[in-house]
Amino acid sequence: MSPTPARITAVDTYDIRFPTSRELDGSDAMNPDPDYSAAYVVLRSDAADGAEGHGFTFTIGRGNDVQVAAIDALRGHVVGRSVDELCADPGSLGRDLIGDSQLRWLGPEKGVMHMAIGAVVNAVWDLAAKRAHKPLWRLLADAEPEWLVRQVDFCYITDALTPEEALDLLRRGREGAEDRRARLVERGFPAYTTSPGWLGYSDEKLTRLAAEAVAEGFTQIKLKVGADLADDVRRCRVARSVVGPDIRIAIDANQRWNIDEAITWTKALAEFQPYWIEEPTSPDDVLGHAAIRKAVAPVKVATGEHVQNRIIFKQLLQAGAIDVLQIDAARVGGVNENLAILLLAAKFGVPVCPHAGGVGLCELVQHLSMFDFVALSGTTEDRVIEYVDHLHDHFLDPVVIREGHYTAPVAPGFSATMRPGSIAEFTYPGGTFWAADLAQQKLNDKKGAAV
Amino acid sequence: MSPTPARITAVDTYDIRFPTSRELDGSDAMNPDPDYSAAYVVLRSDAADGAEGHGFTFTIGRGNDVQVAAIDALRGHVVGRSVDELCADPGSLGRDLIGDSQLRWLGPEKGVMHMAIGAVVNAVWDLAAKRAHKPLWRLLADAEPEWLVRQVDFCYITDALTPEEALDLLRRGREGAEDRRARLVERGFPAYTTSPGWLGYSDEKLTRLAAEAVAEGFTQIKLKVGADLADDVRRCRVARSVVGPDIRIAIDANQRWNIDEAITWTKALAEFQPYWIEEPTSPDDVLGHAAIRKAVAPVKVATGEHVQNRIIFKQLLQAGAIDVLQIDAARVGGVNENLAILLLAAKFGVPVCPHAGGVGLCELVQHLSMFDFVALSGTTEDRVIEYVDHLHDHFLDPVVIREGHYTAPVAPGFSATMRPGSIAEFTYPGGTFWAADLAQQKLNDKKGAAV
Repeated sequence: MSPTPARITAVDTYDIRFPTSRELDGSDAMNPDPDYSAAYVVLRSDAADGAEGHGFTFTIGRGNDVQVAAIDALRGHVVGRSVDELCADPGSLGRDLIGDSQLRWLGPEKGVMHMAIGAVVNAVWDLAAKRAHKPLWRLLADAEPEWLVRQVDFCYITDALTPEEALDLLRRGREGAEDRRARLVERGFPAYTTSPGWLGYSDEKLTRLAAEAVAEGFTQIKLKVGADLADDVRRCRVARSVVGPDIRIAIDANQRWNIDEAITWTKALAEFQPYWIEEPTSPDDVLGHAAIRKAVAPVKVATGEHVQNRIIFKQLLQAGAIDVLQIDAARVGGVNENLAILLLAAKFGVPVCPHAGGVGLCELVQHLSMFDFVALSGTTEDRVIEYVDHLHDHFLDPVVIREGHYTAPVAPGFSATMRPGSIAEFTYPGGTFWAADLAQQKLNDKKGAAV
Repeated sequence: MSPTPARITAVDTYDIRFPTSRELDGSDAMNPDPDYSAAYVVLRSDAADGAEGHGFTFTIGRGNDVQVAAIDALRGHVVGRSVDELCADPGSLGRDLIGDSQLRWLGPEKGVMHMAIGAVVNAVWDLAAKRAHKPLWRLLADAEPEWLVRQVDFCYITDALTPEEALDLLRRGREGAEDRRARLVERGFPAYTTSPGWLGYSDEKLTRLAAEAVAEGFTQIKLKVGADLADDVRRCRVARSVVGPDIRIAIDANQRWNIDEAITWTKALAEFQPYWIEEPTSPDDVLGHAAIRKAVAPVKVATGEHVQNRIIFKQLLQAGAIDVLQIDAARVGGVNENLAILLLAAKFGVPVCPHAGGVGLCELVQHLSMFDFVALSGTTEDRVIEYVDHLHDHFLDPVVIREGHYTAPVAPGFSATMRPGSIAEFTYPGGTFWAADLAQQKLNDKKGAAV
């Protein structure tokens, strides 16, 4: 008699919020006071090895509860599934979740519901990598091209990329993969840092952090722009004078502009040789990005952290609207959909420079770039992963930056697992930090009322 | 001493679900078993007249709770606001809700969070129209062009439509408005019916309902397609033979196809002279729609019920991707954003034929088309509002169809108010219908287990 196959027994969700707004970490022209948060999910199973899959959606505070509710709505599709079957074919679960005909109405494939699907699908990939005893990047890089193609949902993208073309790209990607893997393990993957450039920082802090970034080996930094042009001119001048002519300075408007503003503003900063202008306008505006790109060259146009799915990315590529494609690990429908996007980028020859930062986004997305380098695009030229230096200590397997490079993870999984102590402290509103904080607020309110 | 101004005192939400899947009403190729539902919101105030604002997001069942959670997340922006100020400038609230920097991360302006904003904003418009003692279409048609322009958020659309152009369109729209208002009140606004064409219906039911539609005065019907080509050929043949050559038959694929499938399939049905092909592919695919439109002419391309916001509509128009623009009253950020979309359509000269059906979508959207006719586009040529004959009896001010036309509403408000008895019966899971139904299911499960 064969033993009962292991099943998923629970989908547990957590509303975890960090009070980052109090330090103005992460402040930009659109997001002045984010409280970096995670709608966090754990897939538990009755497998003998006790393996769990962890995943999350990143949010910036309010609404994290809505995201948790959306993950909860997927529970019925996951509980009771065979662990082996899930791990053998995570793409199949992704298609099932996207295909829930009633939940699909809430998107389709965008916003809250799609990010919830991404969190659950990513948790399955974490589980699959843990059970394979490999970091996720290596599981992907070692996989057969045929299997990888089966994980991809080609719905709505076959006019730009067919399964046959994808297979061909992945087969060519294997040539020289062993060498590249050795180089990756030795050297890591290039990073750039946004830590100096938050809008809420003083010129002194910008100066200090930019100098530190160069000293630490980064060859690119990023500044937030878009709130006030005179400020941006001053800050770009400060940054350029600190880092010198050879360090790339990216600028990031976080969607603040209409098309004409984006063009005017970017041109006004051109004297400081910005490398790219990021999110100049709405992430939904394919034609707008194309118009901006045409007008601001040679400044490159980058976007992606808010691009909702592979269908918008497909059009950004078809329309020649971007020079740099910025995937995000927790915005789209999980690793499967990012595979589709990496394949589209490879087909169109556009470099992928992931968005990261927030809570755990660096931890996740490094795996995708490392796979891309080892087994798909085959190069790190003009490719850098964003790096922001905060909140990493809440993860069991935090990113390691060495001389401006992400070190290749070695622990099995997707580096998504948060420390139990952090979960207990920052769960909202019942965790120890928030319970004390809310009690203090209540006390202050009473005092205020009494005065 | 002046009296205290009236304030919003509560934002009450309800998860209301109708068990429509049991009759296959509303079945199509993408949505085989919808349970038409509403995430329903009531703004209560301490105004002396006791006025309430009602609004909702339409969903098709599962996930209605997620939508309710999203509306709940907006409560803090609304409770305590002055009723007079809200009603004097609903657009201002819309901008505040969209601009919540933390909630914005969950979109921006798309999916669950944006539909929640639409529900709340629409409830304010309902309140404003009730307090003005006018049906909403009339409040809009009577309003000063300058005021209407101030309600519109031009963010991300100025490359296609400036406030000055919008003002010009609205001023021209006033010419002859009095005559058109009289004609509207006398004759109503043309409707077409989808009731015959659900995919789950037999040929006999299709035949009977199509004949009835013609007899009732409709000049256009719609058939769902996209599940099986041989079935579609047969059903189109049946429908065409029943209605004759002069009645327009629209076909609707509900996003089932990739670009090449959409072209092939539509061409295969061309012999039955379909008037438009609706939602041939993903609502996100502007360039895909443009390619399809070019290939399937003279069959027109229509889309919009799942188009997430004005930014995608803008591009559909800029790219020449659609012949018919289908607004939905409860998908985008409320009346304000639909004003933007109506103005864009007017600027590009594309007729607006709203999506309706579901729960209460007919009740809402008729107001927008009637305003468009009276005070903006000034014509009903090639303009029809979808009509589906179910669930109207749950509303206090249900639509009235006469000889294939929507009758202009006369009751003050946005026709959004559901009967209290319907709310009590169909609230999920505690309403009387669902409590009894779930108890019965439990009983059946027990019996099943005992057998």
